[in-house]
Amino acid sequence: MATKFGLPGKVYLIGAGPGSADLLTVRAATLLHHAEVVLHDDLVSPEVMQLIPASSMVQNVGKRCGKKGITQEQINERLVEFARQGRVVVRLKGGDPLIFGRAQEEIHALRDAGIDFEIVPGVTAAFAAAAAAKIPLTERRSASKLLFVSNHQCDQKVLRNWRANVVSDTTLVFYMPGQNFTELVDELRGGGLEAETPCLIVSNASRPEQEFVRTTLDKLADASFAPAPSLLIIGSMVSEFKTDGPRPEIRLEEVLTLDDERVTTLQKRSQASPDDEQFIEEDPLLSS
Amino acid sequence: MATKFGLPGKVYLIGAGPGSADLLTVRAATLLHHAEVVLHDDLVSPEVMQLIPASSMVQNVGKRCGKKGITQEQINERLVEFARQGRVVVRLKGGDPLIFGRAQEEIHALRDAGIDFEIVPGVTAAFAAAAAAKIPLTERRSASKLLFVSNHQCDQKVLRNWRANVVSDTTLVFYMPGQNFTELVDELRGGGLEAETPCLIVSNASRPEQEFVRTTLDKLADASFAPAPSLLIIGSMVSEFKTDGPRPEIRLEEVLTLDDERVTTLQKRSQASPDDEQFIEEDPLLSS
Repeated sequence: MATKFGLPGKVYLIGAGPGSADLLTVRAATLLHHAEVVLHDDLVSPEVMQLIPASSMVQNVGKRCGKKGITQEQINERLVEFARQGRVVVRLKGGDPLIFGRAQEEIHALRDAGIDFEIVPGVTAAFAAAAAAKIPLTERRSASKLLFVSNHQCDQKVLRNWRANVVSDTTLVFYMPGQNFTELVDELRGGGLEAETPCLIVSNASRPEQEFVRTTLDKLADASFAPAPSLLIIGSMVSEFKTDGPRPEIRLEEVLTLDDERVTTLQKRSQASPDDEQFIEEDPLLSS
Repeated sequence: MATKFGLPGKVYLIGAGPGSADLLTVRAATLLHHAEVVLHDDLVSPEVMQLIPASSMVQNVGKRCGKKGITQEQINERLVEFARQGRVVVRLKGGDPLIFGRAQEEIHALRDAGIDFEIVPGVTAAFAAAAAAKIPLTERRSASKLLFVSNHQCDQKVLRNWRANVVSDTTLVFYMPGQNFTELVDELRGGGLEAETPCLIVSNASRPEQEFVRTTLDKLADASFAPAPSLLIIGSMVSEFKTDGPRPEIRLEEVLTLDDERVTTLQKRSQASPDDEQFIEEDPLLSS
């Protein structure tokens, strides 16, 4: 394709991960650093946004529930148009780009226009929330399946065809759960889920504002407000959540500082007596 | 906790992602670089393993189906023991550490022993496979839910309680699907899934050996062999797969080379005539 600057344009649909910049993939961080145009959702964290070079054109194309703004068609058009100008275009979506994000419409638009594109997966919010809460999402016997559902208030129809009787051995994760759980609770209770089924709302997973609300299904409708972005985990695995569980927020710089300390220790070790080396070599755990 | 080297030990349960090293998170790559002990699963790719420093102790603690080897109890003991020695211990699991990976048992062992630990989420295979195949995993109307199931041949019981009637608007992803789909097809067909329901086996997602097998439910049992690690995606979203779809494998070095080229272009632009700058500033797409 002929372009103004002599290079073919390309669109990267990139998962921005849950929020903490160090939970971007290496590939996403690399590409972001060289983006010429970035069209991003509301959900992308300020910390990730800071990685975009000052020279890039940046547009918030988020479509908040009920808010009038840019349409999906306009987003599609912009992706195509910027790519036709020969630019490196990044379409940045919170979490992973292929779940609950209208990726299909953008993929169709790019295919129809003959634009080269790549999809870079990301860490979806459910895994970041579970990691922060230190709870497994599956267990071989009691929770052998994992179901992701969008409970977006704009898409009431998503709960149609819902079969609550599947969930006894399934961990449920509701994305964009909103704040009114009355209908959801009724549906799940009506489907046979126990009143005591443990529930966890995780707000701002991996971000400095991260918080948890632990409750049970019968009390979920009265749960205290948890700010968006949040998600709701329901099922037996939630019982693994301990109030001492949440890790303190550690930034990348702190990891590097910690690592420097470790590196110094390692250096000391390598200069230490042969006995110390021996200790490592003959570790009974290594020969068992 | 008193330790040999004066620093408290810590265990990091880290998701190694799908295989390509640039799909590690920044945090995982950073921590891996400074690991003193690494206990890893079979599924972790050679490319990721290469990031571990030569000075680290590395043990494959993978438990292949039916293969006698290290037990889960032994893995738990080693994690605790190495941490008690004051080391930076990485427990490296393919994909994300909290799905289909016996994380619960390791978390319990670490909690019981009072060992500090952190969980670093990763890109799970389903998202890497979908990104490679360029298919969305959900769509607002036709595929509003996403279900992950393990079809591990060692855990036949996982299909018990299965309700196939939930799947008409659900994308199904089977992890560790094995090679014999006869029973699975019978169950899904019996549950009401159409014979023509599209299926995609993705083998070695994001790795150089990446390949796809596209078929339908009625032909799935006869599908050609796809080497592990693989996963199976079933549902209407699979119809988005185009045979021209799979992106060529691009390594991190190539991205950087590409980016150098881009950077040069950008530099040329910034030295170009004001008209060029004007072109960017007055882009009608930016003011619409």
